Amino acid sequence: MPRYWSEVVHRLTPYVPGEQPQHPNLVKLNTNENPWPPSPKVLEAIAAATDDRLRLYPDPDSTRLKQALADYFGLKVENVFVGNGSDEVLAHAFQALLKHDAPLLFPDISYSFYPVYCNLFEIDYRIVPLRDDFSLVLADFDQPNGGIIFPNPNAPTGRAVSRADIEALLQRNPDSVVVVDEAYVDFGAESAVPMIARYDNLLVVQTFSKSRSLAGLRLGYALGAPELIEALVRVKDSFNSYPIDRLAEAAGIASIGDEPYFQDVRDRVMRERERVTQALTGLGFEVLPSKANFVFTRPPRPAEVVMQALRERGIIVRHFKAPRIRNWLRITIGAPHENDALLTALEEIVSEAG
Amino acid sequence: MPRYWSEVVHRLTPYVPGEQPQHPNLVKLNTNENPWPPSPKVLEAIAAATDDRLRLYPDPDSTRLKQALADYFGLKVENVFVGNGSDEVLAHAFQALLKHDAPLLFPDISYSFYPVYCNLFEIDYRIVPLRDDFSLVLADFDQPNGGIIFPNPNAPTGRAVSRADIEALLQRNPDSVVVVDEAYVDFGAESAVPMIARYDNLLVVQTFSKSRSLAGLRLGYALGAPELIEALVRVKDSFNSYPIDRLAEAAGIASIGDEPYFQDVRDRVMRERERVTQALTGLGFEVLPSKANFVFTRPPRPAEVVMQALRERGIIVRHFKAPRIRNWLRITIGAPHENDALLTALEEIVSEAG
Repeated sequence: MPRYWSEVVHRLTPYVPGEQPQHPNLVKLNTNENPWPPSPKVLEAIAAATDDRLRLYPDPDSTRLKQALADYFGLKVENVFVGNGSDEVLAHAFQALLKHDAPLLFPDISYSFYPVYCNLFEIDYRIVPLRDDFSLVLADFDQPNGGIIFPNPNAPTGRAVSRADIEALLQRNPDSVVVVDEAYVDFGAESAVPMIARYDNLLVVQTFSKSRSLAGLRLGYALGAPELIEALVRVKDSFNSYPIDRLAEAAGIASIGDEPYFQDVRDRVMRERERVTQALTGLGFEVLPSKANFVFTRPPRPAEVVMQALRERGIIVRHFKAPRIRNWLRITIGAPHENDALLTALEEIVSEAG
Repeated sequence: MPRYWSEVVHRLTPYVPGEQPQHPNLVKLNTNENPWPPSPKVLEAIAAATDDRLRLYPDPDSTRLKQALADYFGLKVENVFVGNGSDEVLAHAFQALLKHDAPLLFPDISYSFYPVYCNLFEIDYRIVPLRDDFSLVLADFDQPNGGIIFPNPNAPTGRAVSRADIEALLQRNPDSVVVVDEAYVDFGAESAVPMIARYDNLLVVQTFSKSRSLAGLRLGYALGAPELIEALVRVKDSFNSYPIDRLAEAAGIASIGDEPYFQDVRDRVMRERERVTQALTGLGFEVLPSKANFVFTRPPRPAEVVMQALRERGIIVRHFKAPRIRNWLRITIGAPHENDALLTALEEIVSEAG
């Protein structure tokens, strides 16, 4: 046992992200990146900020970026927190708002980073199973808790819950913070953001990584009542004064400013998702109804076999070994030619079995 | 008392960074930024990475950047950890390596973020006073401890300790991790890095913000034995999988690759520091011997008055209200014309008192 480690380090089981192979010719459908690039205005804004001013610290409060987000969502700066990717925002939320005497609740099949944060910050938690059809039923969270968190749409299932269901949950849990992790919300689900003005216990977390095609830049944010945001700020200012660099702040502001591009990319992803869903169904795959930029699907052959067969063809998808979902694959919606390659390969793989 | 906050949030007294005024005509000598810009090769590397690949996640392990640092220092990748600024690296080190039953030791006059990390992670600490001349005497740390951390050179004093003194400390504390925070080491102090191969309990933390003129990009790193680095990796992978964005990684690699530029900028800063030190001394200021890119100086008039008088002239320096140092100012070494403006202003301010 390494003698220099703090006690908490021994206990950790770190999160394992999807692999990032460096091979350039792979069709990479394993980490839910957007197949379309960021807005040209984002690249221009980065270029304009790439100069001698990089010798200077960024604004520690990222005020201009927070103002841009506040204006976009019809909120105030005091409703906005920004971080180095939504994973960092979530980490601060776990420590600042979700650690209480009663256990935190989250779904059994969900973002697998949640239990990792709980281990890091010594947060007691209880998992709430999804139903057999992988639906997330918020009424199942009616039990004593110190906080609730779930992704909407859920990952890796892609299934969404309605705003009305979230509102009912907020009303039933006035003493707990409810974190809605909306990493994928822009691909067709109902955002909880319009309820922020009415519910002091609602924190919504979003990211620039998916719908805004900026996974490479690390920008996430939280929206909520000022009291919740202040807790995040206090933890952030006790951890790292300057989490957002100058280029990321400039990029984020430009992305928020290019609404037509954002809408166009969302639409393209959703159209491709419908096409892939229909084609997969035609090949005998079960496909859950997805509101995300991926589909969760059960192949007619063992999922691990299909994953390996795709890999041999240079196509990478994500497989999880958790018992309830080991017969399923999570496949990111790619560009049209990538989805074509996927579907052609799957047609071959399925027919091989016959 | 805000009801949704985790208990730890109530206890926090966040770090307050030096202000980052947005006014463009200020002479900003308050946050130890480098007056010279980053290497042109850094700006080229960022430009080359500013393209459609920003839609993709960065390498979660920043392997190329870690390899560049390992090669530069004659170490292995397993000896290198990188983070979103050295503040993040320090935060992880506090949680992963410095939290033990015995108290952490650090100087009373030092980087004021250390007690903030202790509050965040609930680490017991004991402060070790500097001597009356603000020297850091490592023999004063000979007491039971769960870890030791100090900056070398120290901040805000600028005073350095020798490698031999650090080695003696390492030998006297084989059961504790000793963190040497070398944010300013490139401006003339002796680095502890050559001792990493011989001492498993040594962690050295450095940054791209000061000597490499990249405060705006947020890049820091730690060097140490693989066991120490693994502890940091485990905490990082339980907090944020992708802390280093694509542009920062490219910039860091390019910076490490331009040694002549780095050496030239260091030399310029050190030459200006000697010039400023002599001129201040001539004006009746006491100046501590500095190995950093700032000087710590006691003006012949009350420090707060001098700070305000400088401010009225558009020159910002840093004043700390802590009792032992409230008669002192920390002044960053600027570009030659900025230092000229500082010295001219101080000459006026000092003569006004007569």
